[in-house]
Amino acid sequence: MKTFQSTFQVMNSGRGMTELTDKIVALVAKAGVATGLCNVFLHHTSASIVICENSDPDVQYDLETFMQRLAIDGDSRYKHIAEGADDMSAHIRTVLTQNSISIPVTETKLALGTWQGIYLWEHRVRPYERKVTITIQG
Amino acid sequence: MKTFQSTFQVMNSGRGMTELTDKIVALVAKAGVATGLCNVFLHHTSASIVICENSDPDVQYDLETFMQRLAIDGDSRYKHIAEGADDMSAHIRTVLTQNSISIPVTETKLALGTWQGIYLWEHRVRPYERKVTITIQG
Amino acid sequence: MKTFQSTFQVMNSGRGMTELTDKIVALVAKAGVATGLCNVFLHHTSASIVICENSDPDVQYDLETFMQRLAIDGDSRYKHIAEGADDMSAHIRTVLTQNSISIPVTETKLALGTWQGIYLWEHRVRPYERKVTITIQG
Repeated sequence: MKTFQSTFQVMNSGRGMTELTDKIVALVAKAGVATGLCNVFLHHTSASIVICENSDPDVQYDLETFMQRLAIDGDSRYKHIAEGADDMSAHIRTVLTQNSISIPVTETKLALGTWQGIYLWEHRVRPYERKVTITIQG
Repeated sequence: MKTFQSTFQVMNSGRGMTELTDKIVALVAKAGVATGLCNVFLHHTSASIVICENSDPDVQYDLETFMQRLAIDGDSRYKHIAEGADDMSAHIRTVLTQNSISIPVTETKLALGTWQGIYLWEHRVRPYERKVTITIQG
Repeated sequence: MKTFQSTFQVMNSGRGMTELTDKIVALVAKAGVATGLCNVFLHHTSASIVICENSDPDVQYDLETFMQRLAIDGDSRYKHIAEGADDMSAHIRTVLTQNSISIPVTETKLALGTWQGIYLWEHRVRPYERKVTITIQG
C-alpha cells in the first residue's frame, strides 16, 4: 500500500458550484493505486465539497435556491456579521454539508456512480481561490 | 497494511431506512484487518448513508417527518422536476446528509457506538436497487 | 504505511462546542506519519464532529441559534420523546452534520486550513462524556 497526495488551488466565480471531477479522475490515474480510497478535502469553512447530480444544471440551481432560503443571508439574529451578509450563512451552509469526502478507487479508477460528480460549492458571494487536498491510499 | 473492498446491491422498499450494519460487520470479519478504517460509500445522489440511533424505530420515523418538512416534495420553486415531485427533494436530502462514512476498525471489529447503526436512507418514494462499496484498510 | 489508532473520552458541559484540535494535533505528532489521513470518529448519535471557524466565538453562537430554530426541541410532531425535549432534536442535528471526518496529514502535520478547528458539538442540554476514536494512516 502507498499514499499519494496532491494539493491544488481552485479559483471560482463566487457563490455556486465548480466541478472538480475531471481533475480528481486525472490524479487517481497518476497515483497508480489499484484498489483503495480517494479523499477530497477543502481547507475552508465557507465552502463545501459535495457529490451532486452531474447531468441537469437545474439541480445545482435548486440546491442553491434551497440553501438561500434555509441559511438566510444577513439574518438579523446573527452576531457574526463583520464580513458581510453572506459570511455567517456561508459557515452554516458548510456545516450542513461537508468539506471532506472519501470515494472508492476500484481497478485504478475513481468509482463514482453514473450520476455523481464532485463539486466545490462556494458559499460566499464574491469569487475566492480555494485550496483542495487529494489523498489517495491503496 | 492491506485494502479489502467489496461491492453489493441493496434492494429497498422505497423512502425510508434499510439497516446495513450486519452486512458490514460480516465484511469486516472477512477482511481480517486488526486496526484501521471501514468506509461505506453509496454510488447515488438520491439516497444517503447515515449513522442513526439503532434502538427505537420512532427515531427513523421522526427523521423522515423532519426531512419531508425541510425538503418539500414538489415545491413550486424547483426547476428540476422531470422525474417527479420526490426527485429534487431527494437530491436536497442527500446533500444535507452523506453518502460516504468512515468507521474505525478496532481489534478486528467495526467500532460502532452502542446506539449506532448504519443505514441506507432511500429518499425516492418508489423502491430502488442501490449500489454500496465497502473499503476496509488497515 | 502504518495505522495508528487512539481512543479517548471528552467530558463536555452540555449543548455547545468543545474544541479537540490541540488533542488531535498532538496525536498526529505522536503517530509519526509523514503523509496520509487522520480520521476523527464520534461513537454517538446525539453529538457531532464538525470543522468550524476557529477565530470568532460568535460563529459557534450563531450555529447553535440556527440549529435550535431548525431542529425544534420538544416539537409536538416527534414520537421519540421518552428522554426529553432535546433528545429527538439532538438526533436530527447529528444526521444534518457528521460524526466522522477525515483530514489530510502533510509533512507530519494535520493539514487544517488557517480558520479550521475541529469541535465536538454536544446536542443534548446536560453534560455528557463522549467517546472519540482517532485513526491515522499513512
